Amino acid sequence: MTAFAHAAMEQLTDLLGKRLLTDQESAERYGVDWTKVWAPSPCAVALPETIDEVQQIVEIANEHGLHLVPSGGRTGLSAGAVAANNELVVAFDRMNKVLDFNEFDRAVTVQPGVVTQQLQEFAEEKGLFYPVDFASAGSSQIGGNIGTNAGGIKVIRYGMTRDWITGLKVVTGKGELLELNKGLIKNATGYDFRHLFIGSEGTLGFVVEATVKLTRQPKDLTCLVLGAPGFREVMKILHAFQQDIDLTAFEFFSDKAMAHVLAHGVPKPFDTECPFYCLLEFEQLSEQVGEQAMAIFEKCVEEGWVLDGVMSQSLQQLDQLWQLRERISESIAPHTPYKNDISVSIAKVPDFVEDVDTVVQDAYPDFEIVWFGHIGDGNMHLNILKPADLAKEDFFAKCNNVSKWVFEIVEKYNGSISAEHGVGMTKKPYLEYSRSPEEIACMKAVKQVFDPNNVMNPGKLFDV
Amino acid sequence: MTAFAHAAMEQLTDLLGKRLLTDQESAERYGVDWTKVWAPSPCAVALPETIDEVQQIVEIANEHGLHLVPSGGRTGLSAGAVAANNELVVAFDRMNKVLDFNEFDRAVTVQPGVVTQQLQEFAEEKGLFYPVDFASAGSSQIGGNIGTNAGGIKVIRYGMTRDWITGLKVVTGKGELLELNKGLIKNATGYDFRHLFIGSEGTLGFVVEATVKLTRQPKDLTCLVLGAPGFREVMKILHAFQQDIDLTAFEFFSDKAMAHVLAHGVPKPFDTECPFYCLLEFEQLSEQVGEQAMAIFEKCVEEGWVLDGVMSQSLQQLDQLWQLRERISESIAPHTPYKNDISVSIAKVPDFVEDVDTVVQDAYPDFEIVWFGHIGDGNMHLNILKPADLAKEDFFAKCNNVSKWVFEIVEKYNGSISAEHGVGMTKKPYLEYSRSPEEIACMKAVKQVFDPNNVMNPGKLFDV
Repeated sequence: MTAFAHAAMEQLTDLLGKRLLTDQESAERYGVDWTKVWAPSPCAVALPETIDEVQQIVEIANEHGLHLVPSGGRTGLSAGAVAANNELVVAFDRMNKVLDFNEFDRAVTVQPGVVTQQLQEFAEEKGLFYPVDFASAGSSQIGGNIGTNAGGIKVIRYGMTRDWITGLKVVTGKGELLELNKGLIKNATGYDFRHLFIGSEGTLGFVVEATVKLTRQPKDLTCLVLGAPGFREVMKILHAFQQDIDLTAFEFFSDKAMAHVLAHGVPKPFDTECPFYCLLEFEQLSEQVGEQAMAIFEKCVEEGWVLDGVMSQSLQQLDQLWQLRERISESIAPHTPYKNDISVSIAKVPDFVEDVDTVVQDAYPDFEIVWFGHIGDGNMHLNILKPADLAKEDFFAKCNNVSKWVFEIVEKYNGSISAEHGVGMTKKPYLEYSRSPEEIACMKAVKQVFDPNNVMNPGKLFDV
Repeated sequence: MTAFAHAAMEQLTDLLGKRLLTDQESAERYGVDWTKVWAPSPCAVALPETIDEVQQIVEIANEHGLHLVPSGGRTGLSAGAVAANNELVVAFDRMNKVLDFNEFDRAVTVQPGVVTQQLQEFAEEKGLFYPVDFASAGSSQIGGNIGTNAGGIKVIRYGMTRDWITGLKVVTGKGELLELNKGLIKNATGYDFRHLFIGSEGTLGFVVEATVKLTRQPKDLTCLVLGAPGFREVMKILHAFQQDIDLTAFEFFSDKAMAHVLAHGVPKPFDTECPFYCLLEFEQLSEQVGEQAMAIFEKCVEEGWVLDGVMSQSLQQLDQLWQLRERISESIAPHTPYKNDISVSIAKVPDFVEDVDTVVQDAYPDFEIVWFGHIGDGNMHLNILKPADLAKEDFFAKCNNVSKWVFEIVEKYNGSISAEHGVGMTKKPYLEYSRSPEEIACMKAVKQVFDPNNVMNPGKLFDV
């Protein structure tokens, strides 16, 4: 440890006492996310309890050239919160309180360490609803959701995390506390830095407080699972329903995904085997809405867009049908899947999927490709399963080629190399497939404004 | 004219030919918005037809130190598009085409000069709906709406302009063309500069193309006009309805506003005179929703929150009731009103209004204060009428004091000095009441990134 580092550690110990963790176990626990490519190697873990402490940590970092990595629920999938290079992890587990609730604004102010599910439950207690929901809701934290602009399964109706944040307090890389937008709905007073910080992956500063809008609880959720002869028909189904019904979800999965999830023990929705399936959900606000949905369903059958289908008749059936979609990930997990999270504009999805299929199968005919995702917002999860007889290293080496091809196709279709997981370290080498050199140069210059000494999560998103 | 300016004009003439206007009439027409405080004095007006021409104009400006002012429909209320200091006005009237429509994404790509109403009508032709709507929709342009993040009367349900823009092409102050977010719903690849440009009032660059989401058309709109004994009861009415019904509008106006609009010839909704009125609107998607609304209405009467009320029974009645709110502005126009557009979080509105009333009436008991606005999103329009016997200059001198007091109260309630009209030149001196010195310093530094030579709309928002 250098003399500089010693001095920094001393100051941090004075500030945090036992809330500065230096043991190996803590380093390994707090220094990673759900990606396992980089080994955790932080110099220590800080557990601040107040905004003032966060500011002091940033000041110490600036003084001593210490690098800081924000840590929330550590459920990230892009190594955005991995501390692999002797950084100080700043974990928000101790800043996990709901600070304020306001029934007229339907707004709740929380610390960044509040877990997504804790916020969802708080909303429910108040007779309200926090609609951003995804698989890791039980451990992901609001601060991390904001850092990555988390999306999930209800984006078609409710949007991304971005759409629910009305106020942010951030500590910038300079140690300044900024209060952004103050929980207001309407505020036309210049640049909206709130939106700049949302999705910035901790590279500009720390989120230390957030005001979040809530909405009314959904009523009588109903879903349909439909089988379609092709991807183009799935698009027509989406279009037909959206004209009349406010969908709360529109998910799709391929026959291969269906086969895995059925083998995993989830009950079959109907007998007809189809190349593609979609699951759509809506609020059955009145009987009329249900009748309307049935009429559109029948029209889709007549047109040949739907081969078979089923509509939930109870909440229990709704949950059961959702398992067809939600349990795909775990059903393919034993096959060591290569995963990619990409998006294009909705209309381009069928061509995009076809192109990726062709390129991958031409090169690697023994690869099984499993598609599923949030088709209603153009977001697909590409999964490629490892053939049983292929060694892990060989598989991942081949998948590196796949990544390049996939991102080339993403670029061709003007899409995003990361729809919802973020860039972090895993997609950093590919950023130019989605953002132009001019844009990346602007990003670096903007980072310079808020974090001139590059103390905030360096090496993530881009290298300065 | 300096030699530099001569050279610039020559280059611009070579580029644009007759689309460079230098006559006095054009200068007066294009150099202003709806504010009339600053006299227009541009050096010329450019009417580009292509993105390439816009880029060349910016390059010429950088070369010769020419200042550029964007000009859309010129309906602004903060002098954000006024060219009072020999700037070159860049007007987008010739870039007014719909470029693309995609039914699956429900997305339309437009040039910045498309008029709001033109977009609304295009959406309607496609069986869809563009929901951002306000009084100047007939002449405001999309580019200007984006520059100011225009809001309007349906924000409670549909949000601001920001919420409908999925892609932006901008030409920065450096002349670079950036393609921001590309029409994607999900895109987690670093800083979302789209949101930085939205609401930046043309100080970072020109919007040269936008991709806009559309939604389904609203069905069976129904409204209620209710009279309440006080402002706190208005909040309770809002709360009661929002728990069960998705409101498309929740407007309020005071008894004084009602008196003016009735005197203006709009029919009375009911006989009971009340201190406050609200107008709320929703989609009556089924009979059940209508019954629900009636039940909540009755509950509000029982609780004493509502003194009287009426519900529209037809589209014609809906339109008539809306006139009570929409024609307030014109009904008070003859009284030379001082206007201010401010917001606080919704729960704070009653106290805020009371504080402003007290301060203004204490100092100027002869001033009539007329309140109305979008209470569902915390946005109030404060109007003070000129007493008939007070000279205009004296009135405006006193109103300057009022502005300062109002902004002090805004600051106390952590609100915004400009809810939806923007800062421009009119609110520039007051920006510190809503944004901290640190934030303003960051804004200036961010402007420097995109517009290092300060050619883009200088003197608006802040002075560099």
